[in-house]
Amino acid sequence: MSSNLSSHKKKLNGASKKSGLPPGTLVHVGKKHKSECKISVTQYSKEALIQRELCSVKELEHLKTDHLITWINVDGLSDIITIESIGEFLNIHPLVLEDILSTHQRPKIEEYDNFLYIVIKDIEIQPDKELSLQYEQISILLLDHCVITFKEKTDDTFTSIYGHLNSRNSRIRQFDSDYLAYVIIDTIVDKYFVIEDHMDDVLGPLENNIFFDSDANLLQTIQRIKRSLVSMRRNIGPVRELLAALQRSDSDLIQEKTMRYFGDVYDHVLRVMDSVDSFRDRISDMHDIYLSSLSNKMNETIKILTIFTSIFIPMTFIAGVYGMNFEYMPELKWRWGYPAIWVVFIIAGIGMFAFFRRKKWI
Amino acid sequence: MSSNLSSHKKKLNGASKKSGLPPGTLVHVGKKHKSECKISVTQYSKEALIQRELCSVKELEHLKTDHLITWINVDGLSDIITIESIGEFLNIHPLVLEDILSTHQRPKIEEYDNFLYIVIKDIEIQPDKELSLQYEQISILLLDHCVITFKEKTDDTFTSIYGHLNSRNSRIRQFDSDYLAYVIIDTIVDKYFVIEDHMDDVLGPLENNIFFDSDANLLQTIQRIKRSLVSMRRNIGPVRELLAALQRSDSDLIQEKTMRYFGDVYDHVLRVMDSVDSFRDRISDMHDIYLSSLSNKMNETIKILTIFTSIFIPMTFIAGVYGMNFEYMPELKWRWGYPAIWVVFIIAGIGMFAFFRRKKWI
Amino acid sequence: MSSNLSSHKKKLNGASKKSGLPPGTLVHVGKKHKSECKISVTQYSKEALIQRELCSVKELEHLKTDHLITWINVDGLSDIITIESIGEFLNIHPLVLEDILSTHQRPKIEEYDNFLYIVIKDIEIQPDKELSLQYEQISILLLDHCVITFKEKTDDTFTSIYGHLNSRNSRIRQFDSDYLAYVIIDTIVDKYFVIEDHMDDVLGPLENNIFFDSDANLLQTIQRIKRSLVSMRRNIGPVRELLAALQRSDSDLIQEKTMRYFGDVYDHVLRVMDSVDSFRDRISDMHDIYLSSLSNKMNETIKILTIFTSIFIPMTFIAGVYGMNFEYMPELKWRWGYPAIWVVFIIAGIGMFAFFRRKKWI
Amino acid sequence: MSSNLSSHKKKLNGASKKSGLPPGTLVHVGKKHKSECKISVTQYSKEALIQRELCSVKELEHLKTDHLITWINVDGLSDIITIESIGEFLNIHPLVLEDILSTHQRPKIEEYDNFLYIVIKDIEIQPDKELSLQYEQISILLLDHCVITFKEKTDDTFTSIYGHLNSRNSRIRQFDSDYLAYVIIDTIVDKYFVIEDHMDDVLGPLENNIFFDSDANLLQTIQRIKRSLVSMRRNIGPVRELLAALQRSDSDLIQEKTMRYFGDVYDHVLRVMDSVDSFRDRISDMHDIYLSSLSNKMNETIKILTIFTSIFIPMTFIAGVYGMNFEYMPELKWRWGYPAIWVVFIIAGIGMFAFFRRKKWI
Amino acid sequence: MSSNLSSHKKKLNGASKKSGLPPGTLVHVGKKHKSECKISVTQYSKEALIQRELCSVKELEHLKTDHLITWINVDGLSDIITIESIGEFLNIHPLVLEDILSTHQRPKIEEYDNFLYIVIKDIEIQPDKELSLQYEQISILLLDHCVITFKEKTDDTFTSIYGHLNSRNSRIRQFDSDYLAYVIIDTIVDKYFVIEDHMDDVLGPLENNIFFDSDANLLQTIQRIKRSLVSMRRNIGPVRELLAALQRSDSDLIQEKTMRYFGDVYDHVLRVMDSVDSFRDRISDMHDIYLSSLSNKMNETIKILTIFTSIFIPMTFIAGVYGMNFEYMPELKWRWGYPAIWVVFIIAGIGMFAFFRRKKWI
Repeated sequence: MSSNLSSHKKKLNGASKKSGLPPGTLVHVGKKHKSECKISVTQYSKEALIQRELCSVKELEHLKTDHLITWINVDGLSDIITIESIGEFLNIHPLVLEDILSTHQRPKIEEYDNFLYIVIKDIEIQPDKELSLQYEQISILLLDHCVITFKEKTDDTFTSIYGHLNSRNSRIRQFDSDYLAYVIIDTIVDKYFVIEDHMDDVLGPLENNIFFDSDANLLQTIQRIKRSLVSMRRNIGPVRELLAALQRSDSDLIQEKTMRYFGDVYDHVLRVMDSVDSFRDRISDMHDIYLSSLSNKMNETIKILTIFTSIFIPMTFIAGVYGMNFEYMPELKWRWGYPAIWVVFIIAGIGMFAFFRRKKWI
Repeated sequence: MSSNLSSHKKKLNGASKKSGLPPGTLVHVGKKHKSECKISVTQYSKEALIQRELCSVKELEHLKTDHLITWINVDGLSDIITIESIGEFLNIHPLVLEDILSTHQRPKIEEYDNFLYIVIKDIEIQPDKELSLQYEQISILLLDHCVITFKEKTDDTFTSIYGHLNSRNSRIRQFDSDYLAYVIIDTIVDKYFVIEDHMDDVLGPLENNIFFDSDANLLQTIQRIKRSLVSMRRNIGPVRELLAALQRSDSDLIQEKTMRYFGDVYDHVLRVMDSVDSFRDRISDMHDIYLSSLSNKMNETIKILTIFTSIFIPMTFIAGVYGMNFEYMPELKWRWGYPAIWVVFIIAGIGMFAFFRRKKWI
Repeated sequence: MSSNLSSHKKKLNGASKKSGLPPGTLVHVGKKHKSECKISVTQYSKEALIQRELCSVKELEHLKTDHLITWINVDGLSDIITIESIGEFLNIHPLVLEDILSTHQRPKIEEYDNFLYIVIKDIEIQPDKELSLQYEQISILLLDHCVITFKEKTDDTFTSIYGHLNSRNSRIRQFDSDYLAYVIIDTIVDKYFVIEDHMDDVLGPLENNIFFDSDANLLQTIQRIKRSLVSMRRNIGPVRELLAALQRSDSDLIQEKTMRYFGDVYDHVLRVMDSVDSFRDRISDMHDIYLSSLSNKMNETIKILTIFTSIFIPMTFIAGVYGMNFEYMPELKWRWGYPAIWVVFIIAGIGMFAFFRRKKWI
Repeated sequence: MSSNLSSHKKKLNGASKKSGLPPGTLVHVGKKHKSECKISVTQYSKEALIQRELCSVKELEHLKTDHLITWINVDGLSDIITIESIGEFLNIHPLVLEDILSTHQRPKIEEYDNFLYIVIKDIEIQPDKELSLQYEQISILLLDHCVITFKEKTDDTFTSIYGHLNSRNSRIRQFDSDYLAYVIIDTIVDKYFVIEDHMDDVLGPLENNIFFDSDANLLQTIQRIKRSLVSMRRNIGPVRELLAALQRSDSDLIQEKTMRYFGDVYDHVLRVMDSVDSFRDRISDMHDIYLSSLSNKMNETIKILTIFTSIFIPMTFIAGVYGMNFEYMPELKWRWGYPAIWVVFIIAGIGMFAFFRRKKWI
Repeated sequence: MSSNLSSHKKKLNGASKKSGLPPGTLVHVGKKHKSECKISVTQYSKEALIQRELCSVKELEHLKTDHLITWINVDGLSDIITIESIGEFLNIHPLVLEDILSTHQRPKIEEYDNFLYIVIKDIEIQPDKELSLQYEQISILLLDHCVITFKEKTDDTFTSIYGHLNSRNSRIRQFDSDYLAYVIIDTIVDKYFVIEDHMDDVLGPLENNIFFDSDANLLQTIQRIKRSLVSMRRNIGPVRELLAALQRSDSDLIQEKTMRYFGDVYDHVLRVMDSVDSFRDRISDMHDIYLSSLSNKMNETIKILTIFTSIFIPMTFIAGVYGMNFEYMPELKWRWGYPAIWVVFIIAGIGMFAFFRRKKWI
């Protein structure tokens, strides 16, 4: 089916790539990451823990063992055939496969007869450009005693979860697959707090400096932060709705006692959203202050201009008067004319100075 | 009935054209396209596919064959009599016919006893003016085993659908008419993504240049994009509500398994709306930056003005003083008076320069 | 009861006129139109049509004939006694009579046991001032087989309806009084489209000129249009709610088949509201552009100021220097001093010119 | 209980006065009015009307007579003991008494088992400062055949109600206590229209003058009106919700036929809110115009500055040139040098003038 | 479990501290206060009152006595083990313990099988910086006949409650633990009014001065107040929802008669929110005025500049003209040339003055 791609050359990255293809055609839409498809399977119960990497999808068939909870994690979405065969093997609706491959999804939850499909975004700070964020779509399929996750690339997002799985006494080993899904979501939401802290670290110094320093780069920085916050809102906001829907859901796949935990993540997302909103307020205040300080600067410049003009222009006029070449200018003959004119200059200067002082300009 | 038109001369294009006519009078309201009414009929089942163009509406009566799904597509709305007879033949409510002909409808869905009436807008980029968009109203009537579509003009919007219909194994051939309606809507919504990508392509370079280049045309461009986005919002926004209503609907015409697909288009529309909103944020930020850069420019101009004035005005004054013609001006007689005055000039200049440097102006 | 009016002299036009009177006192609140109370009665069925003007309210008693639908239209509200006796004759709640007479009502619908009371506003462009609108309150009472309308003054709003009534085959003659009420509302809503077109005609040229021409009158025009749009919103917005309420209503007075038609007017009102909102966006954009162009102008003015000052001030200084009267100024004696100074002037001028060119100012 | 007050000295007027006291402690929070507690009792039926002023709360016990509707009005809230004993006598919940005494309540309705508690605000224009409003909290307790009202001070708000009560045929005498409550609310809401008219009278002239006259006081006036409108919104807005709640209420205290009347007041409040909102729009437009006119003024000032500088600076330079003392300046010797220079001056002046004319500055 | 902390060194204060830890790990997130964990237990009934401080959690086991209502208050959250053992002793869900320790919670209510968990924020003015606020998270667990509160540090927030408990006749002694919970919330909400009053005290003088004095610090002050108000909104807003949820709740732990009291606090919170919103309006108005006054100042400065330039530049030009050294300048020889030029100067000056007067500049 992916052969359909060849007929579509113009633009490969945008969401419009699929325009014209029959609905349900599997095409990987999004940034291509180099990593190949990597399938890791973790099976666990209170007593046992088995972890391995699969070479081919066919091995999945030999996998099913009773009394074990299975977590299949797929890193990398470029190998469409693999994804497709996983889908066939687990009997997943073609629309879900399509959504897994198209990484411009909004976070959402969809209930199917035999599974829940959850899309959520992992956020990371781009290592080189500290103000722009990178999003990775993570798809979670929650089945009976089984969780399947799809990630765009191999990274260490799930490392800590594997750590908890290794610990025999950890709560994750006592609960069913719904708790595993919770832990995965919770881990991703916890990373939002890291971003939140980072934003706070960036905003703090900016806010302190903005009253004193206001070069043009500042405006660019403000714009870049603003845009990051907008993209955060767009990617985190729907998570809130997702979790609210999940709590309202009466799916058998989620047990009563796990519900509380989802309620807890929901609270966390609310808090992140609160922070993002307050960041937006702060950044918009900073923009206002920046504009005010521009105005202030111009004001001061014009003040200086006015002071100079006002002090010297009248004196220059007087000097000009006595530079005239009229034959009959009695003052020019006066013995004390020149010193007197200096007195006039000084008085005019002091007068102007006093005037501006009264205006509170100097 | 269309003879009523003759009595109405003043203005033929606006929505107010119908003012004063009895409700239910069929008048084509909207831009007239040259294309005549063209009726194409496609009938298909898993096994068969029949396509033909009709010369007259009467041929429709000979059409009805069992076990086939029928898709009647009408290109061009100027031939009111044809539209009217189609309406009569299929027993369509006069208000629906009125809405089909009046191309200023908001996208909407209406449930009637025997059919669903859906209005949706196709968007295209105007070939010559890349920033303004063209809308085409597409009316979809979903009946039992039958879909009728009305388009304003002949274009290639549905070409890809005909392609899928030709393929025997395509999903469209396995499903009923509700899936055909879905494919039509999905095809139109997919075009929204093309527009989204185009907008992104336009905004990107603008955003990069705005900090450096800020001529007056930029403001016009920003305004034009803003207006395009507003019109997109107005034409896509109601599609969201339409699809939500369709999902809530309990019409027999839509089967349970097709519902999922409508849910998928709904998600797509949500994403387009998200993008449009973020574009609006970006364009409004650009406006702010444009204004800031205007202010910045003025600031710099005034700074230069101030520097020149502040440096030369005092020196001009001093030159004026020694241009005075007083008889008793001892300095004028001094041997080193003239060089001394140059020293004063240079010191004053350097002092001013240092002052502005301290102010971080130079 | 209207004698209460005499005790209330201070201010006769404002809504506060009734303050202090017992609730339910009938007072005509609003602009007084000269037209006297004019009562026209139209009775019709499929077969018959009787039209006449009444001289007194008492004739109403002789009116009631079976199998005919009666439409009583009252033009002019100044004759309180007439209104009151109509109210008594038809057993209308005193609060409704009060509302009919007070022409500052918001559009609304009220369900009473035996009738529906609908208030709606007719909009017209003031003939002399093309940017300000005139509102006329039209009250519609829908009873069983009977519609009563109250208008502030005699005008041709209902002329087209009388025309349709004259035509034996028109749909209006086939339906009951609820359809008549629909036709009245539809006629008024159609006039909104006329206003919409007019606004579009006014805004178009303004938008094209605003980038080039920006005198102070423009701001006044913008403000005037803004205010017109606000008043349109206030008078049309509630009509939307009114029609939504009407569609939800389960009153026996409205038949199932007429409901569709009210749904159609509802759609029209939605479209008008969409347009009004987009006009507001456009007018607010125009305000922004106006302000930007003000800034641009100031910027250009300051640029010219700076160029002049920057070119001539240094040269004036140099001229001043050689206008000094020091005895020992060797340059003054030089043979080529004067031409040399001109060379300096020219070089300085060209240098400045080049500097501003590099700044992209000239 | 009021002895608790003595321990609380710091600040007596603010809402924080009660902070630290046990909940339910009766303290008069709000502006102290000089008027003592004045209790007026009105009892009426269709046939009878008894009015008197009580000296002590104990007289209330002798009051209860069958078949009469009782209205107890208390003017002044400073006498806490009196209020408390009324509360005890009528078995009113301590929280209600607390709310009656604390005059910073939001308008609200509370349903108790045996009575309805309504808080509403009376608005008056402060006699000396015409732009600031004065609010008086009026508490209404609607019991079975009995209404009790508490006002902050003695004024003529209820005078017109007493007038209607005097008239034997007035509707108020035919209805029960719920209609009395309606009349009281209606009377207060009618006063909102007086304020609305007053605001309109203030805004009208301001709007006409703002394009021509724009001194700094104007900004203060605009701010003061803005603040008045905000406070109006805050005090009237909840009345809308109150009346909506009242209409939804199924309390036995309100009869079906009175409901209509409350619906009517509800409409009035909607209209007042509409007006307040449109006033806010107008005042905010005025602020925008004020700022525009500031900009315009500055623009004109700078234009004048530029014109003067541009015309005279080059000419002064030329004059400076021929003021130089070079020995070899041939022009100085020319017979027509001086007239020629005047020609240059005049040409330069006219050229500049023509330039600015082309720029449309003069 | 707290040993997990050691592995986490990078940043100890932010909300991201918990990122990577298994969910449910108890870590104190928030500002560390020096105070150790202090446990005070108050037990009371109508007849008895026992108060003591516990040294260890184990003493809790000996505590339970019938017919007494128990209030356990824990000051300080740094001693995780103590908190944990309290949780174990009372069988509290681990997620609740986690929330108690993490002091960045939003105010919220959660219903568990055997208790209600309420989080609320106490606000205090920072003693040294009067414009910034300090928040303290207070967790309230309402159990059957028992209330447990957790505070971040030891302060006098609850002092007044202990006072009321001491009084045998106080209502608090007559009611059950739900009333105690109400009193605690009411006490905290009453402190909001103190903050409100403080804000009012700060805003009042600022508003009066802003038209006259507008230095750069003002902007900083405005920003600081704005931020305080935003944080107040964020911390008080959810309390409103919390109390609304509490009133809707059908928990057995809250008795019917206490419900009224919670309704009363709810009203108080509404009022505080109203005030905060109006403060925000006022502060945003002040920002506008500040910007206007900046513009005004600049306007005045430019006016002075223009006046000086316009008066002296033409006169300087004339002086320059008669400073030229042409041989044939007849005016220079005139007897009255010099006095005549002074007349010209004076007339020019007066003319300019009159011109500006007409422009209403002087």
